[in-house]
Amino acid sequence: MTPSLVANGGVAAGEAVAAPVTGRVAAVYSEVQSSRIDHALPLPSVLTKPFKVVDGPASSAAGNPDEIAKLFPNVFGQPSALLVPSDSDSALPQQKLKIGVVLSGGQAPGGHNVISGIFDYLQDRAKGSTLYGFRGGPAGIMKNKFIELNSEYIYPYRNQGGFDMICSGRDKIETPEQFKQAEETAVKLDLDGLVVIGGDDSNTNACLLAENFRYNLKTRVIGCPKTIDGDLKCKEVPTSFGFDTACKIYAEMIGNVMIDARSTGKYYHFVRLMGRAASHITLECALQTHPNITIIGEEVAAKKQTLKNVTDYIVNIILKRADLGYNYGVILIPEGLIDFIPEVQNLIAELNEILAHDVVDEGGLWKNKLTSQSLQLFDFLPEAIQEQLMLERDPHGNVQVAKIETEKMLIQMVETDLEKRRQEGSYNGQFKGQSHFFGYEGRCGLPTNFDSTYCYALGYGAGALLHSGKTGVISSVGNLAAPVEEWTVGGTALTSLMDVERRHGKFKPVIKKAMVELEGAPFKKFASLRNDWAINNRYISPGPIQFHGPASNALSHTLLLELGVQA
Amino acid sequence: MTPSLVANGGVAAGEAVAAPVTGRVAAVYSEVQSSRIDHALPLPSVLTKPFKVVDGPASSAAGNPDEIAKLFPNVFGQPSALLVPSDSDSALPQQKLKIGVVLSGGQAPGGHNVISGIFDYLQDRAKGSTLYGFRGGPAGIMKNKFIELNSEYIYPYRNQGGFDMICSGRDKIETPEQFKQAEETAVKLDLDGLVVIGGDDSNTNACLLAENFRYNLKTRVIGCPKTIDGDLKCKEVPTSFGFDTACKIYAEMIGNVMIDARSTGKYYHFVRLMGRAASHITLECALQTHPNITIIGEEVAAKKQTLKNVTDYIVNIILKRADLGYNYGVILIPEGLIDFIPEVQNLIAELNEILAHDVVDEGGLWKNKLTSQSLQLFDFLPEAIQEQLMLERDPHGNVQVAKIETEKMLIQMVETDLEKRRQEGSYNGQFKGQSHFFGYEGRCGLPTNFDSTYCYALGYGAGALLHSGKTGVISSVGNLAAPVEEWTVGGTALTSLMDVERRHGKFKPVIKKAMVELEGAPFKKFASLRNDWAINNRYISPGPIQFHGPASNALSHTLLLELGVQA
Repeated sequence: MTPSLVANGGVAAGEAVAAPVTGRVAAVYSEVQSSRIDHALPLPSVLTKPFKVVDGPASSAAGNPDEIAKLFPNVFGQPSALLVPSDSDSALPQQKLKIGVVLSGGQAPGGHNVISGIFDYLQDRAKGSTLYGFRGGPAGIMKNKFIELNSEYIYPYRNQGGFDMICSGRDKIETPEQFKQAEETAVKLDLDGLVVIGGDDSNTNACLLAENFRYNLKTRVIGCPKTIDGDLKCKEVPTSFGFDTACKIYAEMIGNVMIDARSTGKYYHFVRLMGRAASHITLECALQTHPNITIIGEEVAAKKQTLKNVTDYIVNIILKRADLGYNYGVILIPEGLIDFIPEVQNLIAELNEILAHDVVDEGGLWKNKLTSQSLQLFDFLPEAIQEQLMLERDPHGNVQVAKIETEKMLIQMVETDLEKRRQEGSYNGQFKGQSHFFGYEGRCGLPTNFDSTYCYALGYGAGALLHSGKTGVISSVGNLAAPVEEWTVGGTALTSLMDVERRHGKFKPVIKKAMVELEGAPFKKFASLRNDWAINNRYISPGPIQFHGPASNALSHTLLLELGVQA
Repeated sequence: MTPSLVANGGVAAGEAVAAPVTGRVAAVYSEVQSSRIDHALPLPSVLTKPFKVVDGPASSAAGNPDEIAKLFPNVFGQPSALLVPSDSDSALPQQKLKIGVVLSGGQAPGGHNVISGIFDYLQDRAKGSTLYGFRGGPAGIMKNKFIELNSEYIYPYRNQGGFDMICSGRDKIETPEQFKQAEETAVKLDLDGLVVIGGDDSNTNACLLAENFRYNLKTRVIGCPKTIDGDLKCKEVPTSFGFDTACKIYAEMIGNVMIDARSTGKYYHFVRLMGRAASHITLECALQTHPNITIIGEEVAAKKQTLKNVTDYIVNIILKRADLGYNYGVILIPEGLIDFIPEVQNLIAELNEILAHDVVDEGGLWKNKLTSQSLQLFDFLPEAIQEQLMLERDPHGNVQVAKIETEKMLIQMVETDLEKRRQEGSYNGQFKGQSHFFGYEGRCGLPTNFDSTYCYALGYGAGALLHSGKTGVISSVGNLAAPVEEWTVGGTALTSLMDVERRHGKFKPVIKKAMVELEGAPFKKFASLRNDWAINNRYISPGPIQFHGPASNALSHTLLLELGVQA
């Protein structure tokens, strides 16, 4: 490779780009980064030899199949595709391909390897093909901003964290005009295929593109399951990439904080973990580290708990621990906790109404406009949170729920409750809360061996699916508890993951988020152990992710439990 | 080993302990924790063979030697001790020893290995000796709370983070009564020696104990240099243990955040790093990761900078970067920044006076009592910080400086400044700040290979010093850039690190904190590169600490530069 070339971006063609292209230079890598570049990426054996695609039975939808069928007349009902060994590749077209790839939404460790996988597939099986990387997410497709990826440019990104090879974005291709722009780009670049690497929304979008292109374009569209949140999964797609690495990074830090808590003996650490819509990250980190208290949003919602219920639960464990002489502990809280509590949602809706239309008087008369339940909740909230709700608004004047630091809020509520009990004489322990938010530290770490290999297979498999003429499917790599050679590779109809939601009087297709299942093996294991963890200190410190030696190839607990491999 | 024994604490003797003893059970370790237990700990070759102690020239003090000599008539002026190979150990007394060990102050990775080192020395060279671990820090000495350490109890803590083997505490042995209590414990346990593992304060305390015991007790006292802050060091003690591991953990997270910043392209991450009195951690993390902006407290103090100067410095770089199309970046801030800014100290002193004696009227007339400089600064501060200064007080009614989240304060000040410039038309970039505080995550991580080995040598060496009859010295392991076999082992007179401070009309001995030297090699290297890092993105992501393979034995940049090994 030529570092100077890479330093200049190694860029070919593409329209003028606004942001400077910052290709990576391996020479300024840390030793660990450098050593990762050449980390071997084994492929499932079906991808190392001639293969053919076998179709399964026709698929349906996750809900409302009739509506989904209407929304996706071209791609609905497609069978799952499975790659199986073949005598020769002769069934595959002997042509050069032009493929585009785009990263969509928040970063997840391993994204670069998906791209490497697609690229290597094309090099290995469709020589002379071209891979375009759309820059800055879906906007790159609409604005036709891209770079042509070559091996020199891609090389330093192998097994590296981040999405900076082509960057990402949160734009969506939604309006007819935007679909037209995407179509124009596909025509201009003569695309045979497009790989969309993203979460549930982006894969819904990928399916809409597939449907749309199917009318009059040769461009096929394949999705790839990305999200550290772990909420894009199904039978055929056992996990989304990045979840493994992010959880291990958070678990490392939680483990360190646990040992700190035990050594100092005087702090309760409230750790909020990224993951707004689902609590998979929190659950996985709990299974890895055994905290004293873990709040799972889905359980709070299912049991229709109030904020006071959650506070009481925490306080009760703190009281029990104080009796045992433990005035310390570690508590995990999912980022999206507030969204799971209906009464909080009601309060916020009422506040938004009041703030939009009424005068908020200092005397507090405005509060009479709240329903009694909301008023009670408002008065229960710590003063700082009350102020935050009233003062910090987004540009539309709405309360900024995402800005509420749930961990600090809970600390204050627990503190107030314990103080009351102290005055009543029922508590004489010491309580000091420390707050943490672990999020950005985990989205761009160097991918674990699992995520590195899994992503490479997802990308290589996506190449194979495109080459085989598939569209509207999500790259699916399975049998993950087995050695890599035995992993299965195929594609699952995106429509089979979909349901409809009614928005503005219209049906909108959505891939159903995979929430934490209270009847699923991971939650059940957690639920069977949490009372023990609450009282006895069963802390486990996973330590830093290792790329060699013990534990370097361990899978997440969630995955192992869902696959039925771990009891 | 017998896990059940360990689960019960493996405790022998000692007075009744208030908190339950939570000995570790290797069986509930993570794979990485387990694998670390048997990680080999090589010793400097002088410790593997018969040795004798060679004394250097008499020592003096770091300042005011006459006063130090008066304060330490018994131990002042001691020569440095160096262990050298000998034909036989015959010069060492052939007796069983009774030794106590105590952990003092905040956790630092490697503390358990110091204890393992002392224990193994006694096993190897003074068979039949006894090691008492005082529980909960210096209070354990005063209250005679201890456990007798045996190999079964110690074993699971080898190469593990935390201080939970015997826990730590922040009490000091200061008053004549407290010294008497310590003396009583030493007599009761018939102690031949005591090892104090701690920072600058604790080692000052160790020296006072050594001085005190010298009058009428056989108990000798040896210090060990502990602190993640890195501010306890001198020529003979090149680094304090824990600094290496903590910085690597923080640098891992900073590196991840950098790649996130570059991938997203829309956030400035303000990262506050632990280290109140000195900025070594921030400097080391900067050298490891190359952030866009790094604030070093010692430089701010030396240049007598104001908070506005610091804000201007940050804003100017943000403006330059916006011109280049970069609306993102990473900024490192030392935890103690505010303490380095004289005007802030003045304001806080004035506020404490006013709040103690005057009525704070809503109209703001009270502000007239501020000096004009302080008034100007107060008005410059973001509203939230003003409120925090006025409202949050400690039990003595003082402003709680430590609670100020400097990173959030700077974000608000930068935001305000940029908004002004936007309205003036001189800035049209996007600014979004994200705040982080990295602290508790780094104090109890699994020690790096360096800290593991260094601590073991410090402890083993402390055993040798006690055995040789030394007192009032700090265990000193040097030549650290060489292979472990060639490391030097000895002791440095604690009085030689001391100066006096005048407090309440009396001279008080203090070990001078090692601050970041603006003429030192680490700062000079940083200063020569920071302008490049500011504008060009030279981010380096060190990745997770590895215990095997590349980089697993790397030393900190600070140490290498101070040793003159790295240019």
